[in-house]
Amino acid sequence: MIPRFAFLKLMQGFGRSSSWHRIMRPDDANIVGNVHGGIILKMIEEAGCIIGTRHCNTQNGDRCLAALVRVEKTEFLSPVFIGEVAHVTAEITYTSKHSLEVQVKVMAENILTGAKKLANKAALWYVPCSLQNVDKIMEVPPIKYDSTEKEEEGRKRYETQKMERLETKARIEEVVPPPPNPDDLPKEKHSVGFSQSSLIHLVGPSDCTLHNYVHGGVTMKLMDEVAGIVAARHCNTNIVTASVDAINFHRKIMKGCVVTVTGRLTFVSNKSMEIEVLVDATSLVEAEKGKYRAVSAFFTFISLDKHNRPLPVPPLKINGEEEQRRFEEGNARYLHNKAKRLAEKQQQ
Amino acid sequence: MIPRFAFLKLMQGFGRSSSWHRIMRPDDANIVGNVHGGIILKMIEEAGCIIGTRHCNTQNGDRCLAALVRVEKTEFLSPVFIGEVAHVTAEITYTSKHSLEVQVKVMAENILTGAKKLANKAALWYVPCSLQNVDKIMEVPPIKYDSTEKEEEGRKRYETQKMERLETKARIEEVVPPPPNPDDLPKEKHSVGFSQSSLIHLVGPSDCTLHNYVHGGVTMKLMDEVAGIVAARHCNTNIVTASVDAINFHRKIMKGCVVTVTGRLTFVSNKSMEIEVLVDATSLVEAEKGKYRAVSAFFTFISLDKHNRPLPVPPLKINGEEEQRRFEEGNARYLHNKAKRLAEKQQQ
Amino acid sequence: MIPRFAFLKLMQGFGRSSSWHRIMRPDDANIVGNVHGGIILKMIEEAGCIIGTRHCNTQNGDRCLAALVRVEKTEFLSPVFIGEVAHVTAEITYTSKHSLEVQVKVMAENILTGAKKLANKAALWYVPCSLQNVDKIMEVPPIKYDSTEKEEEGRKRYETQKMERLETKARIEEVVPPPPNPDDLPKEKHSVGFSQSSLIHLVGPSDCTLHNYVHGGVTMKLMDEVAGIVAARHCNTNIVTASVDAINFHRKIMKGCVVTVTGRLTFVSNKSMEIEVLVDATSLVEAEKGKYRAVSAFFTFISLDKHNRPLPVPPLKINGEEEQRRFEEGNARYLHNKAKRLAEKQQQ
Repeated sequence: MIPRFAFLKLMQGFGRSSSWHRIMRPDDANIVGNVHGGIILKMIEEAGCIIGTRHCNTQNGDRCLAALVRVEKTEFLSPVFIGEVAHVTAEITYTSKHSLEVQVKVMAENILTGAKKLANKAALWYVPCSLQNVDKIMEVPPIKYDSTEKEEEGRKRYETQKMERLETKARIEEVVPPPPNPDDLPKEKHSVGFSQSSLIHLVGPSDCTLHNYVHGGVTMKLMDEVAGIVAARHCNTNIVTASVDAINFHRKIMKGCVVTVTGRLTFVSNKSMEIEVLVDATSLVEAEKGKYRAVSAFFTFISLDKHNRPLPVPPLKINGEEEQRRFEEGNARYLHNKAKRLAEKQQQ
Repeated sequence: MIPRFAFLKLMQGFGRSSSWHRIMRPDDANIVGNVHGGIILKMIEEAGCIIGTRHCNTQNGDRCLAALVRVEKTEFLSPVFIGEVAHVTAEITYTSKHSLEVQVKVMAENILTGAKKLANKAALWYVPCSLQNVDKIMEVPPIKYDSTEKEEEGRKRYETQKMERLETKARIEEVVPPPPNPDDLPKEKHSVGFSQSSLIHLVGPSDCTLHNYVHGGVTMKLMDEVAGIVAARHCNTNIVTASVDAINFHRKIMKGCVVTVTGRLTFVSNKSMEIEVLVDATSLVEAEKGKYRAVSAFFTFISLDKHNRPLPVPPLKINGEEEQRRFEEGNARYLHNKAKRLAEKQQQ
Repeated sequence: MIPRFAFLKLMQGFGRSSSWHRIMRPDDANIVGNVHGGIILKMIEEAGCIIGTRHCNTQNGDRCLAALVRVEKTEFLSPVFIGEVAHVTAEITYTSKHSLEVQVKVMAENILTGAKKLANKAALWYVPCSLQNVDKIMEVPPIKYDSTEKEEEGRKRYETQKMERLETKARIEEVVPPPPNPDDLPKEKHSVGFSQSSLIHLVGPSDCTLHNYVHGGVTMKLMDEVAGIVAARHCNTNIVTASVDAINFHRKIMKGCVVTVTGRLTFVSNKSMEIEVLVDATSLVEAEKGKYRAVSAFFTFISLDKHNRPLPVPPLKINGEEEQRRFEEGNARYLHNKAKRLAEKQQQ
C-alpha cells in the first residue's frame, strides 16, 4: 500500500497540467525548413502519455501506462520552422471510469524575434493498461471540474468519440489491403498508382513503451512520413500536413514487429490532397499470426510555393470503380469539413 | 505446430519480394547534401534482414532471425541527395540448405522533378539463427525458380561466395592490428599515418537485433563513416563512397560491446582511394575475453568538385615495407576490378 | 577466476589512454552550424565511461560499469562546426581506492583545410558500480604514475573534488523547485520569468547504460539544450555554451523515469549569461516515490554575431529578493572565475 502522505505530495506536485519546450532540429524538417507534421504529432502524444500515466498512477493498485486509443481530428494551424522552440502544454480535461481525455496545445516561438503563434491543438484519449498485464484496463482517478458545464461538455465529447470508435472498428476490418507495388509497370502521372508509396520499419526498443508496445506517436510520425511522400510525388512541390482526421488505435503493435505503412491518394480538391494511410503489422518471428491492420487514417496535405502560399494541386486521374468510390467518399468528407469550419466561423 | 492455413496465407501475403520507400534526411548526408554510402548500406541490410527473416519463419520449428554473413562487392552507381526518396526493392534469389541470397536494388527519386536513377544494387547472404539458441542454424525453406538456368546461376554464386568466405576467414585471423595513434608526433601530409582514423561506439539497444547482436547494417554504416573521415583528411574535399568490396561477417558483436573502427589508406589511384577498415570488438564487462577482429573490408572513395565531377586525388606517401606491400595488393585489386568492369562492358 | 594470460593481453592492448574520431552532423548543431556544447559534453562522457569501465574490469571480482559522479568546470575554448571531425582523447590520470579521474581532450579538425584547434578539455570522476548490484562500489585497480609529483597533484585534485561534492550534496537538498510556468500571464521582456524554460524527456533504452540508468552525458546534453533555449530567449541571437561549472551527480535516474529539465537566468554580465539548470526526475509508474532533484548546474552562455564575435547581452530585470540573492551569488561566481583566469594567465 502507498502511504497517504505520498498522494498528497503528488497532488500538489503535478496537478492536471504540464508544459515544456523543445527546439526544432534539422532532422525534424523537410528541405525548406518546415517541421514535419509527424514530429508535432509525436511530441503531442508523448506529452499526453506522460501526463496521463502520471495521473493514473496517483492511486492504489497495479502500476500502469496510459495507452493511446484515439486522437481527434487535428489541424495544423501554422507552420513550424527549424530553430524555433515548440512550447507544448497538456491538460487532462475529462475522465471516465476507464479512459481520460488530454488536450494538448503547441505554440511555436521564433527565438530570434520572440514571435509566437499557435501551431496545433489536439485532443487525445488514453486508457490505463496495467504493467503486470497489458490487457487489464485500470480505473482512472476522477478529476475535479471547474464547473458542471465543463464536466457536461466533456461527457458529450466522451460519448461521441466512443460511438465513433465502435463504428470505425467495424469499418476497419473490411478495408481491403492495398494492391502490391509492381515496379515493372510505369504508372500514368497523377494517377493513384503513380504516387502510392510504402515504407517499412522494424520496430526497435526506442519506439516502444515500458510495455514493449509501439508508442502511438511513433506510428503517427511514420504515417505522416508516407503521406508526405505520396503528396510530394503527386505535385512535385514543397508540401505540408494541413490536418489529420480522427485516428483510432484498435490494435497494438509489439516490439519485434515489422510495420508496413502505405499511403494512397483518395481525393484531391483545388488546393488540397487527401491521403489514406494504412498501417499493417507482422511479427517477424511469429509469422503464423499473419499480417494485421493496426491503424488507418486520412491525412490532408497542401502544396506551398517558396513564400509558403498555397499552390493549386494537379487533378487526380481515377482508374476503376474502387478508386471512384474512394474519391467520392473523400469528396463527402471534404464538403462536410468545409461546412463545419464555416459553421464554426459564423458561431464566433 | 502452425496450422497449414496460416502457411497458405503467408505465401500469398508476402511472396519472395518486397519494396518500400524512405525519404533522405539532413543527418543522412554530408555538408553538401550527398547521402552517405553507409546510410544506403544500412537500408539495404535492413531490407535483406526483414525479407530473409520472414521467409525463414514460414516453416515449422524454432522461430529464427536471418543474420548477415556476407555482402557481395557493391558499387554506388549515382549519388543520392537530401530530400530524395529512396525506393528499396528486395528479392530472395537463391536458397541453399542453410543460407539464402537476397538481391536489393535502391532507386533514388527526386520528388520535385520526378526523375529516378539507379543508386545501388547489392547481393547479401543470410543464415537463419534460432531465437532459442543463436548458434543453431535452421534450415531454409526452398524457393521456386523461374527457370532451371536461374537456379543454376544461383548455385554458382553460392559456391563462389562459400569459397571466398572460407579464404577470408583464414586471412582475417592473421591481419595485424593497426598501430596505436600517438597524437604527439605530427604526421607528414598525405602519408598513411596522417589520415588514419578511428571511431569508437558503445553498442546500445537500438543497434541490435532481437538476439541482442549488432545488425550488419549498423556495422557497415560505422565503417563507411570512418572511411569517409580518412578520405576527407587525405584530400580535403567533398568525398563519396564509390564501392565496397565483399564483406564477410565472421564473428558477431554483442550488446554492451565497445566497437573500435579504424580506417587507413592502402592504395590511391589518379581518381580513387582505397581504405581498409578494421572493426574490433571488446566486451566492456567481460574484459578477459580480449579484443577480437569482427569484420574488415576495403572501401573505395572518390573526390568530387562542387558540380559532382571527380577530382584528381593526391598521391599517397608510403613509409616502410608493410605499407608498400598493402599498396601493391591494393593496386592489384584496382587493376583486377578495372579489367572486370571492362569485360562486363564488352559483354553488353 | 580469469586466467593471468588474459590480463597481460589486456594490459598491452588498452593501456590507460585511448583516442578516436567522430564527424559532426547537422543535428548536432544550431541553425548557424555551431555544434551544441551538450553534444561535446556527451562525447566526452562516453569516452570517460568507456575508458573507466575498461580499466575497472581488468581485475578479479564482479563485472562493473564506471558511473559518472562529477565533471569539473569545463570551458568551451573554440566553437566546433558541422562537417568538422572531433578528435577525442581520454586518459586515466588518477585512481583512488573507489574512484578514478579521466581527463578528456577534444580537438576539432576542419577536414577541408586540415586546420585543428583545441575545442575542450575536461576532467571527470567515475566510480565502478557492480553489474550484480548497482549500489556496490568496486575497488579501482591502481595506475602507475609517470612521477611522484604527478601522483601528488592527482591526490590534491581528488581531495578538493571530494570536499566540493560533500558541500554541494548539502546545498542541493535545500534548493527550492522552480515556480510553475503559468502561460496565461505574459512576462516582462528580459525578466527571469520571461526566458525560464523547461523540457521533459521520457527516459528510453538508448539513454541508458547496461545498468538501465541514464548516462551522465545524456543528462548533460539535455541540460545544455534547455540552457540554450533560455539564453536565446533572453537575447534573441545566436548563442553558444562558453563554460559549465562543476556538476555533481548525486542521484541516479532510472529507465522509465520522466526527466524535467528547467533553466532560469541567475546572472548576466556585459557579455555573458549564467543559467541555473535543475534536473528533476519522477518515476512514471512509481509515482509514490515523488519527484526528486537529480542534478543541478550553472551554464555560462555568450551571444555571437554572424562572424562569431561576442555581442553585448541585454541586462537582466530582477524581481524580488530571491532573484536578487541568486544574481549576487552569480556575480560572485563571475568575479571569482575572472580573477582565477587572470591568475592563471599571469602564471604562464
